[in-house]
Amino acid sequence: MQKFDPWSSKQLDSEALFKEFGVSQLKDSWKKLLNHYLLERNIVVGQRDFEKIANCIKKGQPFINITGLAPSGNMHLGHKAVIDLFLVFKNLGARNYFCIADIEAYASRENIETMDQARKIAANNIAHLLALGLDEEDIYLQSCYEPRYYELAFEISKKITKRAFEATYGHVDLGKMGSALLQYADILHPQLEDFEGKMPSITPIGIDQDPHARIARDVAKRLPYNMEVPSFIHIMHQSGLLQGTKMSSSMPDSAIFLNDSPEVVKAKISNAFTGGRETAEMQRKLGGKPEICKVCEILKFHYPNTQELQEIVFSCKKGARLCGETKKLTIEFLNGFLKEHQKKVKEKEPIATKIVFGKRKKQKQ
Amino acid sequence: MQKFDPWSSKQLDSEALFKEFGVSQLKDSWKKLLNHYLLERNIVVGQRDFEKIANCIKKGQPFINITGLAPSGNMHLGHKAVIDLFLVFKNLGARNYFCIADIEAYASRENIETMDQARKIAANNIAHLLALGLDEEDIYLQSCYEPRYYELAFEISKKITKRAFEATYGHVDLGKMGSALLQYADILHPQLEDFEGKMPSITPIGIDQDPHARIARDVAKRLPYNMEVPSFIHIMHQSGLLQGTKMSSSMPDSAIFLNDSPEVVKAKISNAFTGGRETAEMQRKLGGKPEICKVCEILKFHYPNTQELQEIVFSCKKGARLCGETKKLTIEFLNGFLKEHQKKVKEKEPIATKIVFGKRKKQKQ
Repeated sequence: MQKFDPWSSKQLDSEALFKEFGVSQLKDSWKKLLNHYLLERNIVVGQRDFEKIANCIKKGQPFINITGLAPSGNMHLGHKAVIDLFLVFKNLGARNYFCIADIEAYASRENIETMDQARKIAANNIAHLLALGLDEEDIYLQSCYEPRYYELAFEISKKITKRAFEATYGHVDLGKMGSALLQYADILHPQLEDFEGKMPSITPIGIDQDPHARIARDVAKRLPYNMEVPSFIHIMHQSGLLQGTKMSSSMPDSAIFLNDSPEVVKAKISNAFTGGRETAEMQRKLGGKPEICKVCEILKFHYPNTQELQEIVFSCKKGARLCGETKKLTIEFLNGFLKEHQKKVKEKEPIATKIVFGKRKKQKQ
Repeated sequence: MQKFDPWSSKQLDSEALFKEFGVSQLKDSWKKLLNHYLLERNIVVGQRDFEKIANCIKKGQPFINITGLAPSGNMHLGHKAVIDLFLVFKNLGARNYFCIADIEAYASRENIETMDQARKIAANNIAHLLALGLDEEDIYLQSCYEPRYYELAFEISKKITKRAFEATYGHVDLGKMGSALLQYADILHPQLEDFEGKMPSITPIGIDQDPHARIARDVAKRLPYNMEVPSFIHIMHQSGLLQGTKMSSSMPDSAIFLNDSPEVVKAKISNAFTGGRETAEMQRKLGGKPEICKVCEILKFHYPNTQELQEIVFSCKKGARLCGETKKLTIEFLNGFLKEHQKKVKEKEPIATKIVFGKRKKQKQ
């Protein structure tokens, strides 16, 4: 059986998730229900138990919306799809829990050397999340939360055998085990009596995070609480701008960061791998290959107007539109979006700082 | 290299701890400084870095006193020595942290099936602790504490390799790993800035808990905080009343529980293994063997008057005193102590219930 390492930044074969592990496709009716281009464009590719959530949405019944982000560096466009999908459920009336996994970032990543460093990154990331449309009350910080949440993480440790853990992840160290326990607690804690109580819950995740989903679903059945087995919805990972990469902070030239300047965006998009032919003449004759083009992928993941996007892709395919033109449009689109976004980030910084550094009280003196 | 399993209730060879692992003897001057029969009678047998604490006591400088108890059932006399030693340091002016390890009890013990069960036992145990002389402010509950504490437990997970963990404990499951992380956090958290800050700390432990001490000391050096490497002081485990047993809840006939009735105490002591000879006549001639007698061990661990105790042991050894007489004295001593104790427990129950069930607030509604 193939093992996925959800901590790796390598690409993975998502076919196996469908064949071997039981992630299912989404029904067309659900895509319509969610009514967002992420579904229309097949960026959201899979689900576990989504029927429950679809029923809640149709009937106007409450459901939990829980996902998160490990603050390990500057945010980039690769983070945005999960956030956009979280916002889809938020706008459909969910009970929202967006986790800033600062403990996980510290415990599982080499480059984060202190919790203080993780928290500073957290404050930066939260300002971006607020700018993208989250509200303060949607967000919680792993390092500054309720005892009941931590208690659950340790309760869960009793419900997973080391054998099952290693069969899912391969051999992992204590830091990653600790991080995984927190992830399961993130997904399951909103269903505790102290929070929402038993309720269907949806977690938007990158498809490579599915191993966590499987264990969380198993644990939900083993805990001595009355819980719905949590539902999941899976998003494809966005590629990096250079060939064969995933968009990741570890390859900065391959990612568009949400704090990139217009010049940097221009340079990165100009250098991006496209589906263009060797010469303009050949491209006019044979057409481009938008299906392998990283610039088109940026548009696919983020360009809101689907009709315009279809026209761009169509004219690329038939050779009417060259890469330079698409790059120019993408640079303009991104820089327009980022200018607005960065302005909002500035406004949200004080709230973000308060969320991270304002809550902690000194204990004994 | 020998491995000790601190979760086992088997007896262990404490010699190896001194020879192989570097636990040291206590200096006579320190025994005088602490001025308690636990030291005088060699029930406290070892230490790591006690010099630091001796210096604090001599100079009137602050130090941390941190130990705890996993609430897994009714408390018995086998728990009392660690508590008595905690009280020695409390009375010497320490900053006190007595952990009620309810999460650990749940996560690592088969017989505790829910956290609610662990917390009910915790409330019972706390009433006993208060009756034994602890104050409410000395006690904290693992499941209901400060986020900074839990955060530290997960921070620690980054600082221990799985290899080191397994080399110390042998192969262990996730529940025990989670419990161990909390134990290290218990020992180290009082030195965080949010609590006392960097300060020498002493942890009284059963000698079989030394593996936790070794890892906690190692972790203290690896964490990105300015911490004193914690000191430890080791207590022998009390035997059970029957031959070859340790006093443990898992062998109820071998333990005197703090809630035992006078009749039960009488029956258990009457059945206890002694160092008596086959006949009264032989015993008068050859003398008893108090060094293997479980009744004498009860007195050694708990009888406060050392001079009287010496006389009892001396007259037993020379055959002047038979087992029946010592049993009678022990039954009377224990029943006198337990009557007073149980009365105090009744008085303390409301505070204990408040500590466990009064703090938790409902979160979102």
